[in-house]
Amino acid sequence: MIDFTIRAKDKDSKARQGDLKLVHGIVETPAFMAVATQATVKTFSADEIADMGGQILVSNAYHLYLRPGTEVIRRAGGLASFMGWNRPILTDSGGFQVYSLTGLGKVTDEGVEFQSHIDGSRHCFTPEKVVSIQNDLDTDIWMVLDQPIGYPAEHPAAVRSMERTTIWAQKSLEAAPRNHRLFGIIQGATYQDLRERSAREITAFPFKGFALGGLCLGEPPELTFRIIDQIEPLLPEVKIRYVMGAGYPEDILEMVSRGIDLFDCVLPTRNGRTGAAFIRTGRINIRNAQYSDDLVPLDETCNCPVCRKYSRAFLRHLFISGEVLGPRLLSIHNLHFYYTLMREIRQSIKEGTFSRYREKRLKELERN
Amino acid sequence: MIDFTIRAKDKDSKARQGDLKLVHGIVETPAFMAVATQATVKTFSADEIADMGGQILVSNAYHLYLRPGTEVIRRAGGLASFMGWNRPILTDSGGFQVYSLTGLGKVTDEGVEFQSHIDGSRHCFTPEKVVSIQNDLDTDIWMVLDQPIGYPAEHPAAVRSMERTTIWAQKSLEAAPRNHRLFGIIQGATYQDLRERSAREITAFPFKGFALGGLCLGEPPELTFRIIDQIEPLLPEVKIRYVMGAGYPEDILEMVSRGIDLFDCVLPTRNGRTGAAFIRTGRINIRNAQYSDDLVPLDETCNCPVCRKYSRAFLRHLFISGEVLGPRLLSIHNLHFYYTLMREIRQSIKEGTFSRYREKRLKELERN
Repeated sequence: MIDFTIRAKDKDSKARQGDLKLVHGIVETPAFMAVATQATVKTFSADEIADMGGQILVSNAYHLYLRPGTEVIRRAGGLASFMGWNRPILTDSGGFQVYSLTGLGKVTDEGVEFQSHIDGSRHCFTPEKVVSIQNDLDTDIWMVLDQPIGYPAEHPAAVRSMERTTIWAQKSLEAAPRNHRLFGIIQGATYQDLRERSAREITAFPFKGFALGGLCLGEPPELTFRIIDQIEPLLPEVKIRYVMGAGYPEDILEMVSRGIDLFDCVLPTRNGRTGAAFIRTGRINIRNAQYSDDLVPLDETCNCPVCRKYSRAFLRHLFISGEVLGPRLLSIHNLHFYYTLMREIRQSIKEGTFSRYREKRLKELERN
Repeated sequence: MIDFTIRAKDKDSKARQGDLKLVHGIVETPAFMAVATQATVKTFSADEIADMGGQILVSNAYHLYLRPGTEVIRRAGGLASFMGWNRPILTDSGGFQVYSLTGLGKVTDEGVEFQSHIDGSRHCFTPEKVVSIQNDLDTDIWMVLDQPIGYPAEHPAAVRSMERTTIWAQKSLEAAPRNHRLFGIIQGATYQDLRERSAREITAFPFKGFALGGLCLGEPPELTFRIIDQIEPLLPEVKIRYVMGAGYPEDILEMVSRGIDLFDCVLPTRNGRTGAAFIRTGRINIRNAQYSDDLVPLDETCNCPVCRKYSRAFLRHLFISGEVLGPRLLSIHNLHFYYTLMREIRQSIKEGTFSRYREKRLKELERN
């Protein structure tokens, strides 16, 4: 079951606030999905993410298929039950991981051969098999197998990747159960003609939602936003829209104003692990020597459990000493930052003040 | 302020249950102290340890003096405040770390020269300086600088280490403020004559409690217990007794019955990090292949948050995938195991059933 209802629309932009009903619960959008690639948001239990305000996680069919294997998760009652989350999960197909992590074999219209990045063993993903894996995982949203392409991409290669993604989209739907939970993925690199063709082809299929793939791969943000501006009018308004791999707080504010509902990104946790903290006015790196005797919190305007309790000097000490608690506390702060941003975005759309909120936050974020 | 009151004594052994009043709170004994060497029990915030039932932590003057430095902790209001614990902390002097981690220079009756294990910088610890560091850290119990010796030790070297420990004990007390919080340390390796002499010399000083150092270094447990049996009658009954670095659950049961009140050990967290879980009937290693599709909890008789929620298969998956959540969850389980053991020990002493409890637990622990 995937049911999207728009509750409020911004009058000055394309921003919308909605409820996404899924098998394991309701997600209020716009929503940020923390990344739990290997069935855990790094360093966190599922309960901790729920306590921070997480509504939905992203996991990965490729990773879970290789380890621990689909069968044990199916026997445990699905991924939500296996990892103790019991709330909505979106699984990426692993198409991106197949291309970025593995020794690749043949890619045909049938599917893709690859070698495991863990032990070099040989496997084959077809669009049908990827649907079946996600069905076994019993996740709430299944992404189709697509053929991503890097940035920058040559036009002919971008055509082939886009056309194959359409062929695989059709095969995925044909293999899916009647009550499927599939999202289609629009490719086409940074070419307007290809993006538009892909959008027309993919939105012609009965997917439950639509994703823009192949963005946030290092292209300039203005280019990302222009592509979204070009594609957005082609997306059915009543269905949910997801930009895969986005993004920085600034990106999210810009994309919400362009009509995007779902986001996922490793930034809050990956940056947390390297000592980078998102604060109201931008970003700081807690490893810097200037914080060694700084007894104020990361962000004095923040009311997260880390800022309420710990000094920059203590957090820096944990990082410099190689204590896991450092990355953990910064990840808590950063996730709190993202979840607060999304809550404020939703609230401002409901109250009709989103555009003012967006302007104000973008200005604040420029300061550091 | 260090004030120890015995509340109950076991009639069949030397076990006692007491209250230890310290500056930051009261500790019910016998107590297990989790190890927070660098101002964190590895992977945990202070609140999490308190929620698990931790009453007191052990930290380390040597480590904190080198990093982040005593001054920033003093300015933060002391170690308890710096790390957000606000409960009792015992600091080890770092004598053991000076010997085990550093490039050693001269050791004289004045003190010990050493090189930092972090950056090779040269430092000197005197008994007086170590008191002053712990005073700045404002911890609840200060351990004197002692001169540990490994196992096995030659008799002449054991004599020198024991005699110097006595000299340093006197200097520590002379340098300490009137309301000091110092524990003395009894050395003497595994030699009955030296242990007895050290016990007589150290207990003649006005320390607030007495520790047995230089045990649990690889000697057979029977030898450890025999030394405790020999020394115990020489310890003033009204003062608290601490065996440094003990131990396994079996060791704790044996030592409590021999009149010991305080324990500290890295086992629950270090074992947790390697995949070893303490269970009612002994120990298992969750990395073993047999657990890859085992959907029952670590220990079906355990009511810790990990056993109430997660399967062995999920925990194994986290370890095999290199996810920090694995070590964290096993450490939670193991700390819960230790804190439960101590609570049951205290309860059984109060109820006059300790010896029966000890027998039963020792038998159960032999099973795996």
